[in-house]
Amino acid sequence: MPIITLTTDFGTKDHFVGAVKGSIYTELEEVRIVDISHDITPFSITETAYILKNTYKNFPPGTIHIVGVDSEVSIENKPIAIEMEEQFFICCDNGILSMITNEINPDKIVEITIQEPIDVELPVLGMFIKVACHIARGGTLDVIGKRITEIKNILEIRPQVNAEKNQIVGSIIYIDNFGNVISNISKNTFQNVGKGREFEIIARNYKFVKIHQKYNDIVDFTVPISKRQDDGKKLALFNCSNYLEISIYRSNLKTVGGASNLLGLDYRDNITVRFI
Amino acid sequence: MPIITLTTDFGTKDHFVGAVKGSIYTELEEVRIVDISHDITPFSITETAYILKNTYKNFPPGTIHIVGVDSEVSIENKPIAIEMEEQFFICCDNGILSMITNEINPDKIVEITIQEPIDVELPVLGMFIKVACHIARGGTLDVIGKRITEIKNILEIRPQVNAEKNQIVGSIIYIDNFGNVISNISKNTFQNVGKGREFEIIARNYKFVKIHQKYNDIVDFTVPISKRQDDGKKLALFNCSNYLEISIYRSNLKTVGGASNLLGLDYRDNITVRFI
Amino acid sequence: MPIITLTTDFGTKDHFVGAVKGSIYTELEEVRIVDISHDITPFSITETAYILKNTYKNFPPGTIHIVGVDSEVSIENKPIAIEMEEQFFICCDNGILSMITNEINPDKIVEITIQEPIDVELPVLGMFIKVACHIARGGTLDVIGKRITEIKNILEIRPQVNAEKNQIVGSIIYIDNFGNVISNISKNTFQNVGKGREFEIIARNYKFVKIHQKYNDIVDFTVPISKRQDDGKKLALFNCSNYLEISIYRSNLKTVGGASNLLGLDYRDNITVRFI
Repeated sequence: MPIITLTTDFGTKDHFVGAVKGSIYTELEEVRIVDISHDITPFSITETAYILKNTYKNFPPGTIHIVGVDSEVSIENKPIAIEMEEQFFICCDNGILSMITNEINPDKIVEITIQEPIDVELPVLGMFIKVACHIARGGTLDVIGKRITEIKNILEIRPQVNAEKNQIVGSIIYIDNFGNVISNISKNTFQNVGKGREFEIIARNYKFVKIHQKYNDIVDFTVPISKRQDDGKKLALFNCSNYLEISIYRSNLKTVGGASNLLGLDYRDNITVRFI
Repeated sequence: MPIITLTTDFGTKDHFVGAVKGSIYTELEEVRIVDISHDITPFSITETAYILKNTYKNFPPGTIHIVGVDSEVSIENKPIAIEMEEQFFICCDNGILSMITNEINPDKIVEITIQEPIDVELPVLGMFIKVACHIARGGTLDVIGKRITEIKNILEIRPQVNAEKNQIVGSIIYIDNFGNVISNISKNTFQNVGKGREFEIIARNYKFVKIHQKYNDIVDFTVPISKRQDDGKKLALFNCSNYLEISIYRSNLKTVGGASNLLGLDYRDNITVRFI
Repeated sequence: MPIITLTTDFGTKDHFVGAVKGSIYTELEEVRIVDISHDITPFSITETAYILKNTYKNFPPGTIHIVGVDSEVSIENKPIAIEMEEQFFICCDNGILSMITNEINPDKIVEITIQEPIDVELPVLGMFIKVACHIARGGTLDVIGKRITEIKNILEIRPQVNAEKNQIVGSIIYIDNFGNVISNISKNTFQNVGKGREFEIIARNYKFVKIHQKYNDIVDFTVPISKRQDDGKKLALFNCSNYLEISIYRSNLKTVGGASNLLGLDYRDNITVRFI
């Protein structure tokens, strides 16, 4: 059974997500719809890029991803469909796939040329749904669009390495449910530039000289539980997506706070790594 | 495979939605459950009415909609089931379907007479689930209830037209995920009263003399991107549900704000159209 | 078709839930995934315990529950799988199942001994997903773990009864979507201790001498609607999970408030029952 995923900034209160699902099931009875996220910050290309990059690989070949973020079509925001790594992505050409296409060359890109169905009360997504169901039925991209070779790139996704190759200046691209702040510095970039040298990571006025592999690495399990004071400690680690992350151990944005508000680190703030 | 949708004010944190789904799958293995919304403002009949009206048409014939908003049964809030437009609605008789039944006559209405199953720990929804599964298996409404001819109507759903037919006084019935405020003035009502005349729309101390068909209509794409200042502009448009909406272009309630908070427009506030 | 449920504190914005679903569907095509909750307060064992206890019974035999709360494995937080009431639970041994195992003896408990798959970018959940799919294919617990007989218990789940058996001191273990505060005092405990005596329930400086069976019990339907003032009344009742709950009739946390903020009752606050 084909899988269609949905990644949008529609929120879960309004009728949009339900309407999209109803339209898909009306067109295609045998299909599985999976919500990736509907809580993306409105119009946030960067958040969407981060979420898509870290989700799609978990899905089986043939999966079709509909992306409804910044998806109002205009002459500057054209609807496209991409085939890549045996999966399909349908979105507007606004840079949302940069984080993936920086590392992987798409097999095929088309600008969607079929008309918006006028009987569907869902501008843009009406078209995306048509395309998704076409692909789910085994149709090719060439039938619904014309080949193009380039898509838009967003620059803030990439950290800057200086000429001396001893400094990476990255920035915060995502804040997760626990308040952990995630930079655009990947483990790969870190290792390629650092080549095993000592380092310091600077985030605002905080400094880290160690990178952990998991959160509870900072706990000394030989200390009796009653004497431990690990909750609330800050640490740097490569998260499960292999990006450099600043975290507060066992944080909770609703009560004690997380790295974002406790350390005053916000979206787009710099995270700098200096190799010594 | 039959589809059962859920529209509730239960929220997504508590166990209720999971329990409802478990109960349905226990009773009926071959069924597809679709969440329409669980984030409706508690007890909000108007929000529910708006969401249902704009979602159900996207679903295939035979779809069964369970509505768990203001659904504690009492002698004044009776459980009903409605067949309409080849779909089924199960809810309490509290006006929640007014927005649909104002325009479409139900084919059949019954007051549910089967007893609440006592082994199910979900008051009301236990009964709704039984009825939904009965319909999903091909059962008729007459088996589970007795025919009635009238259901409750809620008045605030309808805008008022003055005797001179040159003014519509509507009100805000919904605020969406982007902070857009949506009135109860439909495109139909607007066109029937206005008959092509010039108009002004008054929302608090803001005036609009043009209605757009899509959000990015207000962008002048001939101006270079670096010189554009369209984000944050306010506009009136008929939204994809064909209701008059006041919007802020590319708004974001979490950061720059949306029409609701930036223009100070709240649920139940008036939106007036004067034809000249 | 086997059912796998998910109960986590991951939130619905991040990519984690989507990634988990993708991984399950990649491993197992014929499976139904049901979200129980992803909005649990981060690391809250008590909330998770309450939600699981009140949900699992609604699911059919064979259902597999993955619990992703406080699920980072350590030498003190071991991954376990439990077979109980013809259902399966996969979690860390952190007390999350206490509320169920206080009442029901598990049929089988194993400490999971298979290794974390290194190709899956989801620490812990990679292992949980492997185990869940193994069970869904009909595999036994003995293949993936070694038998143990004890699991951790959390004490705050249980109310205290005094020696004279005329007082129960419970505490608030959950606050629901409507702001209702739910204690750990079950109807069973209440009846076993009270044996039909008169009682008073004390919550902060509020006293209740009656327990209702449903919310609208407090409405006098013989009074004309225009003269009723029931909204906002406080009441004690056994909720649909049979726990003692303090509620405000037709409350709404977003506008008029609910029992939690109007009465100043918070998580872990005492609720006392005195029998007279």
